[in-house]
Amino acid sequence: MKKIIFSILLMVPMCLFAQKPASTNVPASQYPMVDEQGCAYFQIAAPDAKEVLVDICSKKYPMTRDEKGVWTVKTDPLVVGPHYYALNVDGVRVNDPASEAVYGCGYFASNIEIPEDDATAAYYTFDRNVAHGQVRECQYWSALEGRMRRCYVYTPAEYEKGGRKYPVLYLQHGMAENETGWHTQGKMANILDNAIASGKAKPMIVVMDNGNCDYGFGSKPGESMNDFGASFEKVLLQDIIPFVESTFRVRTDRNSRAIAGLSWGGKQSFDIGLHHIDKFAYIGAFSGAIFLMPGQKAEDLYDGAFKDAARFNKDVHALFMGMGSVENFGADRMTKMLKDYGINATYFESPGTAHEWLTWRRCLNQFVQMIF
Amino acid sequence: MKKIIFSILLMVPMCLFAQKPASTNVPASQYPMVDEQGCAYFQIAAPDAKEVLVDICSKKYPMTRDEKGVWTVKTDPLVVGPHYYALNVDGVRVNDPASEAVYGCGYFASNIEIPEDDATAAYYTFDRNVAHGQVRECQYWSALEGRMRRCYVYTPAEYEKGGRKYPVLYLQHGMAENETGWHTQGKMANILDNAIASGKAKPMIVVMDNGNCDYGFGSKPGESMNDFGASFEKVLLQDIIPFVESTFRVRTDRNSRAIAGLSWGGKQSFDIGLHHIDKFAYIGAFSGAIFLMPGQKAEDLYDGAFKDAARFNKDVHALFMGMGSVENFGADRMTKMLKDYGINATYFESPGTAHEWLTWRRCLNQFVQMIF
Repeated sequence: MKKIIFSILLMVPMCLFAQKPASTNVPASQYPMVDEQGCAYFQIAAPDAKEVLVDICSKKYPMTRDEKGVWTVKTDPLVVGPHYYALNVDGVRVNDPASEAVYGCGYFASNIEIPEDDATAAYYTFDRNVAHGQVRECQYWSALEGRMRRCYVYTPAEYEKGGRKYPVLYLQHGMAENETGWHTQGKMANILDNAIASGKAKPMIVVMDNGNCDYGFGSKPGESMNDFGASFEKVLLQDIIPFVESTFRVRTDRNSRAIAGLSWGGKQSFDIGLHHIDKFAYIGAFSGAIFLMPGQKAEDLYDGAFKDAARFNKDVHALFMGMGSVENFGADRMTKMLKDYGINATYFESPGTAHEWLTWRRCLNQFVQMIF
Repeated sequence: MKKIIFSILLMVPMCLFAQKPASTNVPASQYPMVDEQGCAYFQIAAPDAKEVLVDICSKKYPMTRDEKGVWTVKTDPLVVGPHYYALNVDGVRVNDPASEAVYGCGYFASNIEIPEDDATAAYYTFDRNVAHGQVRECQYWSALEGRMRRCYVYTPAEYEKGGRKYPVLYLQHGMAENETGWHTQGKMANILDNAIASGKAKPMIVVMDNGNCDYGFGSKPGESMNDFGASFEKVLLQDIIPFVESTFRVRTDRNSRAIAGLSWGGKQSFDIGLHHIDKFAYIGAFSGAIFLMPGQKAEDLYDGAFKDAARFNKDVHALFMGMGSVENFGADRMTKMLKDYGINATYFESPGTAHEWLTWRRCLNQFVQMIF
């Protein structure tokens, strides 16, 4: 009897405290849950379905049905950070109604955050003791496209006081994501607030617009890889930058402009930044889709942008490439080649992460400390 | 032969132009489509599903499967404006991956906008020829709740220039919606931009926060109807208003404060506004959940707030109640009773709409022209 009571006492805390609702759940929703090992627990009622599974982090987990038709599953330990995922009900990919939906994967996808320990997560966590900036949703007219566009603009806490002008980082999302990604999945406002408050980053404005690659490549018949998102360059130069510079108190010299992006947005940032060094003095690619073709040399890349290394190093004050240690996106090879050629390039590797938002949060946190 | 060619010529334009992708579709998505009669056309691939249907505007439409497993359906003509909807795959309510997801119904629900004619829709449509305000996402610390909260704050276009102070409208969402509703489903920024630009409304700041009723009533076991969302009153008075008044350039006298909301947010606005006439001079309820109980008299309501009608009319410069003509939410009966009692109450009826966002867009457009 004593042994049974002791066992129950041991079990209760494990059951009560080991699992908790994910921070990405909708209000009043218990599931999905996460535990300290990073396992996720999903649940959905589907009495009439034949087969239900969870598709997360490139792996499918078949769910198990109980006698009432409620399906559940526990995953393997997942990498910390946010992950897009889907349920699959009788062959149809669907959202989990219990989780927040964020724009990614070319549609509004379910999102779950696997928590890190508080200390590691501190740089992207809301801190009540620091001053907070704002993320402003702006609608503006694009003369080039003949339609309304939308961007988000982070202004630092001190922007509200006084008349100072600020430098601007143009920050891009990846393929099949959009202008909402950085301040929902990316937690960029917390990252900037914390980096600025600690003095590690200068107060700056961050502009997040739609990179014209917010659908999956291949969705538009006949569109080539070279065309995908390429129209963003003109929109940025002719519509977005003039809108920002006429709306906000910003500095307008090239030393006060940076451009960076993740994945396809990293490719765009390199394409645009390296072709317009007269306009951008800081360029970053986070898991950028910037692969070397066989035989390519540093001097051939980007129409010879690197050819005169000394001149490049004088003009470009930061050339940053980052990626996760468990993805294979070529930033290390590209950096080595450029460094061997004499270019001051910075390589950052995010330990234990793949092609995902935790990599990009970490990259942003590094990059904002190098600019302006 | 001539007859056949003539028939084809007649048919082609009907097929080509009658249907178009909904404005609420995700990028590169053809379906759902809408036609000029307000019918919606849905499509989803689900080869292994047994039964798929669309659930929209309180009606279920069974979808038809073709030989490839693609399911389609055309609805009856729907009321213009935005509608939450869901697909149902083998008994499971799921989102349509082809539509935007917005927070409503206590989770991220699929949304489809049934278009009005351009002239009728003009007041909530982006107009390239007017100046545009911003919607600012702010995170702040709630001492009362011991957690970070989020609000959206609309600032009028002219706020960026000069040092003027502005009056503030506190604007609330309904049950199972949240602080994002008014600027996504409600198109409040366009409504304010247009009303201000035309001189019909004064430049003002609009604060949209979470009313602590962002889940469905009944989701929290043991919670009474009286408790549902009631904690918002203290949060508004002790955390939100002080945050807004210390962060933005706003006027802080009662004649510069209004409160309004839709559905449950209308109830909250009446509860809070009528109990704090010292703080709010304008009060509105759009399809407000403010029902008269049998035998209730004007002088008994809200702890006697209406008792001295002359005094009330002197203090409260606008008491507004609106609703759709095809819902039954009691705003007409409440207004009549108050008017009979001598209260200057305004009743607005939205023609042809029910308990839905088009009613609330119209109510907001009326209300902002009556305040400040």
